[in-house]
Amino acid sequence: MSGSLEIIPLKGLPLIQPGDKLAQLLVKTAEQLRVGVKNRDVFVIGQKAVSKSEGQLVAVDHVRPSRKASELAKMTGKSPGFVELVLRDSRRVMRADKLALIVRTKRGWTCLNAGIDKSNVKGPLTVALLPRDPDGSAFRIRQEIKRCTGKTVGVIITDTHSRPFRLGQVEETIGIAGLSPFVDYRGSKDLFGYELRFKNVAVADELAGTAELVMGQGREAVPAAIVRGLARVRFQNRARSSDLVVSRREDLFRGTL
Amino acid sequence: MSGSLEIIPLKGLPLIQPGDKLAQLLVKTAEQLRVGVKNRDVFVIGQKAVSKSEGQLVAVDHVRPSRKASELAKMTGKSPGFVELVLRDSRRVMRADKLALIVRTKRGWTCLNAGIDKSNVKGPLTVALLPRDPDGSAFRIRQEIKRCTGKTVGVIITDTHSRPFRLGQVEETIGIAGLSPFVDYRGSKDLFGYELRFKNVAVADELAGTAELVMGQGREAVPAAIVRGLARVRFQNRARSSDLVVSRREDLFRGTL
Repeated sequence: MSGSLEIIPLKGLPLIQPGDKLAQLLVKTAEQLRVGVKNRDVFVIGQKAVSKSEGQLVAVDHVRPSRKASELAKMTGKSPGFVELVLRDSRRVMRADKLALIVRTKRGWTCLNAGIDKSNVKGPLTVALLPRDPDGSAFRIRQEIKRCTGKTVGVIITDTHSRPFRLGQVEETIGIAGLSPFVDYRGSKDLFGYELRFKNVAVADELAGTAELVMGQGREAVPAAIVRGLARVRFQNRARSSDLVVSRREDLFRGTL
Repeated sequence: MSGSLEIIPLKGLPLIQPGDKLAQLLVKTAEQLRVGVKNRDVFVIGQKAVSKSEGQLVAVDHVRPSRKASELAKMTGKSPGFVELVLRDSRRVMRADKLALIVRTKRGWTCLNAGIDKSNVKGPLTVALLPRDPDGSAFRIRQEIKRCTGKTVGVIITDTHSRPFRLGQVEETIGIAGLSPFVDYRGSKDLFGYELRFKNVAVADELAGTAELVMGQGREAVPAAIVRGLARVRFQNRARSSDLVVSRREDLFRGTL
């Protein structure tokens, strides 16, 4: 249908290993599924696949904890090695008790465990860290897709986030290349000529959640999807996921929780 | 492609007026677009269309403000009538100054202006309130689609929400019928037999954002979309949007903002 969007799960990808050329695997899978790659496709990729391909895997029992990590490990009931990894990626600890370890990461995300996660990682004590520079990862994957196919696409890397006020997690953007994270309506007019003063839609996060609907979180083994047919987003070379972060000072919700 | 999701914008709907039979208009539009209605389709509808069809439109200059509304109007720079409408739908005011009026609504949502909004509403001083009972609205629309077409669908009513920690707004679910808001992984195993203890994905919110990608917020005049091909969600008769609300006491992020 004209104007429809298609969300294509990239089924059949192998389990990603350190050193795998992820972009090439994505393109190969798209070809095997006979969907190919088109200009203005957006590749949405779960963080775990990117982290694995970049070798961001650590056995927590091989990590030497700092004194602060050991203290927080007692407060949270988590292993000292795991907490040490969380602290290394964190700028500030926001909450640390038996229910949750919430930090603001060095990149600005406020999330549980600095995004470090055990699920779908091989080895009983091995965890996956976030990609070191998710925008850089997205940029390189986009370049490599361009090199392999000649097509200009967008790339989004996502992570699963809990949220204030609402139950359950959703997928949100932690890395982006090739498209603006926003569709900005501020200054434009509505149907009756009224000027929109506030609306600036975080389409990157909506795209992250969209892809999750076909990717899943458990044994589905679908770590990536293509979103095809986007009319509204702005494709552009410059993109930064940090544009999605609100500083503590400017957070409208500061003091409400 | 097998497993793909299709997001179909319901283009060509007339501008909704009070008293319009929204479900019938949605079905008629789907037929005119030759996409029809299928079992397990999810209709995602922007709050504004539902509010208009239910006559939830108020001219703020006809509203008599309470003393508290007049005070808050001064603090926020908003009109006393508008603030009065916000207070009538609110349980608690979380922030009130020139930058934002944030409340917890009687239904539990924490949001700006209790979701009361001017955009795409005719009349210089007329605003749209949220539907009185969005789950009830979704339930009735679902029933009416069943009656017109014989098909069993899901219905989600959405609103545009600002969020803590992150810039820009996304579409989130405020009313639901016919499907569970969650896909719950807790207790299931990952690819390597590790038990997932925490993952409970708020697919209703992901569906809301997905539909927004084809609906837009300004002059697009596409107030609804069909999501077709969902494999993961659980269709069921019982559904409550309040399941998406976290109580203040149980909010993991309490004290972090």
